Amino acid sequence: MGRSRVQVTYWLENAWLGTHTAPAILLTVADDRIAEVRTGVDHPPAGATALRGLTLPGLANAHSHAFHRALRGVAQIGARPGTAPGGGAGSGSGVTGARSAPTSFWSWRDVMYDVAGALDPDSYFALARAVYAEMALAGITCVGEFHYLHHQPDGTPYANPNAMGEALIAAAGEAGIRITLLDTAYLHGGFTRTGYRPLEGVQRRFGDGTADRWYDRWSRLKGEGHAKVGAAVHSVRAFSDRDGYRLFAERTADVPVHIHLSEQTAENQACTLLHGRTPARLLADNGFWRPNTTAVHATHLTAGDIALLGTGGGTVCMCPTTERDLADGIGPAPQLRRAGCRMSLGSDSHAVIDLFEEARAVEMNERLQARTRGHWTAAQLLRAATDDGHASLGWPDAGRLEPGALADFTTIALDTVRTAGPPPRLAGEAAVFAATAADVRHTVVGGRHVVRDGRHQLVQDVPGSLAAAIGALRH
Amino acid sequence: MGRSRVQVTYWLENAWLGTHTAPAILLTVADDRIAEVRTGVDHPPAGATALRGLTLPGLANAHSHAFHRALRGVAQIGARPGTAPGGGAGSGSGVTGARSAPTSFWSWRDVMYDVAGALDPDSYFALARAVYAEMALAGITCVGEFHYLHHQPDGTPYANPNAMGEALIAAAGEAGIRITLLDTAYLHGGFTRTGYRPLEGVQRRFGDGTADRWYDRWSRLKGEGHAKVGAAVHSVRAFSDRDGYRLFAERTADVPVHIHLSEQTAENQACTLLHGRTPARLLADNGFWRPNTTAVHATHLTAGDIALLGTGGGTVCMCPTTERDLADGIGPAPQLRRAGCRMSLGSDSHAVIDLFEEARAVEMNERLQARTRGHWTAAQLLRAATDDGHASLGWPDAGRLEPGALADFTTIALDTVRTAGPPPRLAGEAAVFAATAADVRHTVVGGRHVVRDGRHQLVQDVPGSLAAAIGALRH
Repeated sequence: MGRSRVQVTYWLENAWLGTHTAPAILLTVADDRIAEVRTGVDHPPAGATALRGLTLPGLANAHSHAFHRALRGVAQIGARPGTAPGGGAGSGSGVTGARSAPTSFWSWRDVMYDVAGALDPDSYFALARAVYAEMALAGITCVGEFHYLHHQPDGTPYANPNAMGEALIAAAGEAGIRITLLDTAYLHGGFTRTGYRPLEGVQRRFGDGTADRWYDRWSRLKGEGHAKVGAAVHSVRAFSDRDGYRLFAERTADVPVHIHLSEQTAENQACTLLHGRTPARLLADNGFWRPNTTAVHATHLTAGDIALLGTGGGTVCMCPTTERDLADGIGPAPQLRRAGCRMSLGSDSHAVIDLFEEARAVEMNERLQARTRGHWTAAQLLRAATDDGHASLGWPDAGRLEPGALADFTTIALDTVRTAGPPPRLAGEAAVFAATAADVRHTVVGGRHVVRDGRHQLVQDVPGSLAAAIGALRH
Repeated sequence: MGRSRVQVTYWLENAWLGTHTAPAILLTVADDRIAEVRTGVDHPPAGATALRGLTLPGLANAHSHAFHRALRGVAQIGARPGTAPGGGAGSGSGVTGARSAPTSFWSWRDVMYDVAGALDPDSYFALARAVYAEMALAGITCVGEFHYLHHQPDGTPYANPNAMGEALIAAAGEAGIRITLLDTAYLHGGFTRTGYRPLEGVQRRFGDGTADRWYDRWSRLKGEGHAKVGAAVHSVRAFSDRDGYRLFAERTADVPVHIHLSEQTAENQACTLLHGRTPARLLADNGFWRPNTTAVHATHLTAGDIALLGTGGGTVCMCPTTERDLADGIGPAPQLRRAGCRMSLGSDSHAVIDLFEEARAVEMNERLQARTRGHWTAAQLLRAATDDGHASLGWPDAGRLEPGALADFTTIALDTVRTAGPPPRLAGEAAVFAATAADVRHTVVGGRHVVRDGRHQLVQDVPGSLAAAIGALRH
């Protein structure tokens, strides 16, 4: 078997090896995996592709809503009075945010729902392909797509009930990155004082009616080489204990399971009013926190919530650029680490697609809050962006530069105006504290050179594709 | 006279006109000023230079310590125990930060002092030239350099006592941008319970001994075409009421005057202990707050402080990327605006040189703190980055695209992966909420095309210049 494998060699000027930067590495790739990592190879041998700069394991973007990319720059206008949090759905007036200035998560959500209402499998494919290509250009080799836009605008399933999810899997394939489709159960429109309100407006697209019907549809999704199927519960406001968290967890025990947790205080309050418990406690009492579970955001937690998440042995996914954009607040990331959680990172609403900025923002937000420095080392933050991020998406064999791992990596230039200065041995620190997505030069996924010298090799004009796909949604 | 002027025309695909974006503008530049702004010119006429994207007035970086650029990426290491705030000076062990992990402003300052101790006029010129060239590439056309590195390491003046300041003016000239040299009086090393401690260690470079001797040296500084001379007091811990705030203000009445204000709570506490007043009140009681004054940081203010600054009619300079990097906290920017202050922006320690990120961070930090959105419009933030920033540096005739203004402007691409998507009429919002310095394509200063298609026209290899100048400081 070994004889028929395709071997390629990459010479890495510097490489991040999980705890430190090492110079002069020769990486042998056989098919889609790393076969050998040799140190001390001072010059690129003949036939090797030289990657100048710092090569990192591929970055995992553990929380994405691809269609939110259409809101970048257009849902920020004005400084008008806010609106009160509500559970209802938006009424729609275009992608421009002209109806109202979104001054809270809830009014921003109305604008977001306008976009959600405008998509179909073809337009979603075109948008997601461009967004995932933008991710590849940012060094992201794997995305976790938290997907709940399942059905037609009135809630009727498409002829192929997984047309939307399959469009996302196909889009990632065309963009050359891996995807974990976190197909989401979204059954209710929010809390009332005595139960749950029905889905209304555009939310009808999200719902399968019952947990069993969600499961029927979900069971028909199939992974392929670049794609795995995971599962998600949207949040405690969209899935009830009567819908069966325990059964959901049993049915999805072998895949990554994600859930939005305590992003908004209004949701915490409504949950406590109805259930007499915080969302984290409600989920713990229903057997939901396990090593394959990822809590997304985890912004507003009690000390007891933090302990529960730590005990579960799972992951928290922080999305700091979205959490600041939506005025969510700053989550207790260091406390969760100390409690035993791993951390992953996500660009979520794609106000920014830059995992270096996400990693940096975890530390910077904590500095703003604690008024001290040094809560996270570069190594800890890079681990979240690579190794732990991949694990939380069900790719435990990616995110490390070592023999046997998937050959997924990315190279940033150390000779740009942003990254020039630090000595090469501090290149990991420079990556976290100085680099941006604009410094990415190469992205290799499964041994395939997807981004070369800053150019996407599969999608010819990524900005043009973004502009066309987003422009098509305007009306 | 008009007949002998050099006329150049620029066609702007889109331009930010202070309140909104307009398409298809023809800008005529005569010598170094804008002579005419014509709207509705649908195609670039023959002979005009077409600037595709969004052209903004040149950005003013109102607070810079050029030499801090050497710390980027190297003063972030580790998560070790912090050190207590102190007033003393560092002892020096290289640019790498290896001695200790800077977990507070004060321990970070020790690392910064190592760099401060290593510079001489030649090495400072080389570093500043590269840093100012990085600024030009980021669309910055004018820098306010808060300069206190005046003398030799033991405090002896150079043969030319303004050798360091003149090196900075020359560096800006070679990098093609304007500079206001905010030459700084720095007479004491910090508060004691009964007075002020003397300068010690590397701080001896900063001091002129007395306010009169500072004034003697300062009076010999001369502006030139691209350079103005302003003045600064480092902070209330470095200049006492006995040194004479009133006399300082009288002597500098015709120039911009800047001061670090209340960046650290430890300084506020020490000031209150000694003077029975906050720094802002101490300065107000000494006639310091006037329309030509800029308070830098203004992070930890009382309600009374905010009212005093508003009454003074001056400017506050926010440096949010530095304030988060140094764990300073979030200043009350919206409250200061409501009190009557103008706002300018500075990249300060140059952990990041990106005024779009500074502008965005003012709003994002407020969202994290207030947990609502919409505190600043894009227009307000762009005004801080352009018009009000220039005014706070003594260039009231720059920062606007209008006849008579200095011909200083910058163009960002709207077709990058970051900026693609929003319609052109929302390009101002896209600039503030989506663009980065990497999206800058052109920078024109006084009609001179300093950055063309993303390449600096005067400094051939800006990253290489940065690496060489910073590497030379390592020992």
